[in-house]
Amino acid sequence: MSVKTAAIIGGGVIGGGWAARFLLNGWNVRIFDPAPDTERKVLEILDNARESLPQLADVQMPAEGDLSFVADIETAVTGALWIQESVPERIEMKHEVFKLIQKHAPETAVLGSSTSGYKPTVLQENATRPGQILVAHPFNPVYLLPLVEVVAGQQTDPSIVDTACELLTGVGMKPLRVRKEIDAHIADRFLEAVWREGLWLIKDGIATTEEIDDAIRFGFGLRWGQMGLFETYRVAGGEAGMAHFMAQFGPCLEWPWTKLMDVPELTDELVDKIASQSDEQSGAHTIRELERIRDNNLVAMMRGLKQTNWGAGKLLNDHDQRMKDET
Amino acid sequence: MSVKTAAIIGGGVIGGGWAARFLLNGWNVRIFDPAPDTERKVLEILDNARESLPQLADVQMPAEGDLSFVADIETAVTGALWIQESVPERIEMKHEVFKLIQKHAPETAVLGSSTSGYKPTVLQENATRPGQILVAHPFNPVYLLPLVEVVAGQQTDPSIVDTACELLTGVGMKPLRVRKEIDAHIADRFLEAVWREGLWLIKDGIATTEEIDDAIRFGFGLRWGQMGLFETYRVAGGEAGMAHFMAQFGPCLEWPWTKLMDVPELTDELVDKIASQSDEQSGAHTIRELERIRDNNLVAMMRGLKQTNWGAGKLLNDHDQRMKDET
Repeated sequence: MSVKTAAIIGGGVIGGGWAARFLLNGWNVRIFDPAPDTERKVLEILDNARESLPQLADVQMPAEGDLSFVADIETAVTGALWIQESVPERIEMKHEVFKLIQKHAPETAVLGSSTSGYKPTVLQENATRPGQILVAHPFNPVYLLPLVEVVAGQQTDPSIVDTACELLTGVGMKPLRVRKEIDAHIADRFLEAVWREGLWLIKDGIATTEEIDDAIRFGFGLRWGQMGLFETYRVAGGEAGMAHFMAQFGPCLEWPWTKLMDVPELTDELVDKIASQSDEQSGAHTIRELERIRDNNLVAMMRGLKQTNWGAGKLLNDHDQRMKDET
Repeated sequence: MSVKTAAIIGGGVIGGGWAARFLLNGWNVRIFDPAPDTERKVLEILDNARESLPQLADVQMPAEGDLSFVADIETAVTGALWIQESVPERIEMKHEVFKLIQKHAPETAVLGSSTSGYKPTVLQENATRPGQILVAHPFNPVYLLPLVEVVAGQQTDPSIVDTACELLTGVGMKPLRVRKEIDAHIADRFLEAVWREGLWLIKDGIATTEEIDDAIRFGFGLRWGQMGLFETYRVAGGEAGMAHFMAQFGPCLEWPWTKLMDVPELTDELVDKIASQSDEQSGAHTIRELERIRDNNLVAMMRGLKQTNWGAGKLLNDHDQRMKDET
């Protein structure tokens, strides 16, 4: 079996996370990013990934592939099987990058974008080969969290979507095929809704950043880490079922707090308030420490779910099994 | 040390969960609910709690208290230290129940309401002793999830709030003192925001209930189970800090999807769509099975967090330590 090659275009937190995910799953990885500190930052992410990801596997992980930092897009993408674009969220820049990529990329390569906001059809505009472009939107830290939203644009070749999902599964991820293009795909729309409500609560002095985090992580965050929203409510509805639950919970939609649906203005004052509350909450830890705490927690929770063979844990067990079958 | 007594008024999923929480932590529990199947339902909840909660402790749990199902509020509340109201969300009924409770309850008892929507000041209207009334809003399953939102009304005696938080900590919970009264307190406002967005996505055919659950539990649900919202973003913002993160993420607030803030109409068609998708997603499991799956998952994730001594795991370790110190 020949070693697969991934080209990572844009080496920030997300691009670096992709690099780690592919590399630790045995792929060769070539990274292109003109920023001077790319190598240092990616190697730091890789350090975190090397410490945490192997703890999730109960089988031998493949030998790491080769990692190289390259000087141009051409060198990065030539002969690559997967090309992942994670450049800043400016559409002109993305179009420009896709043009350069497609000049040199194999026609059969998957060309995934990490965009959290743009629809794939928008990314495909004026592309040389729109058929190979899709959205593959991951979640930070990319080397640990399994979810990838895979979204096809109007011109995406269906076989490229199949290939993408297969390759993502191969590196231990959970590709979620999104049925219809929509701004921000699925998960970020929820994050946006919660973020908006969080900003209101802080602005109005109802809660601090820490209190909001506590309200989430000691309660529904734990529920959502394993069952999500609807399954949780199905269980809460009891024997009478989901329709009964909705009859009970539905009226809340008309309660007064649903009026708070404006977008709060992001004034300097509000930004300062949040930043200083956040400093107070966790300023004692460096970001590096917090990353390690987060990674250790995610590993611990997912290892727990491996024992119950559910959700992310079942995914990991299935992945272990595939690795065993292959060797 | 004399055994403490809790009176549970309303024995549904929430009241039954409270009963289990107190009972397994050594309290005597008296339950009043006029519904004929209360005893069966509470005993089922108790079965689940007995299987799961002790798995979270690494020390000997106290001997269970005595459980009784009583015929009236007077018998339930006489001599009780904690009285928890979990009757349906109708304000007239709650006022009526409080009146009956206060006729017989000790003046020093904590009188907590499980209401998810009403402000404590509204609950206090026309009460005999408004000072002892507060909101103590828990999360299902109450015997496993630590969070309780503790909200004081305008007339709540501050010493009752202190007592409440101390007693809740004693049964292994995480009391979150909410600074200001607001409809739905804190956590349910987030749940409402996400629920609303979920209804839109289903109504518009973007995703099914299962796809939405996957988008949550394979991604940000895992993050939120340990760090919540703001801490997660602080880490994502990297060395440049929270203000930098907000500068990056802030503009999303003006993106098109923020327009989707109307309340979707809960038509029969939409209810049917959700109910049938949910059946397809998990109809293979009975609710009883799903409860056990959920509880096992929550235990596994929280036990993982005990190892990293973080969030709910740190809370459990601290609780273990207190239990050891007491014996």
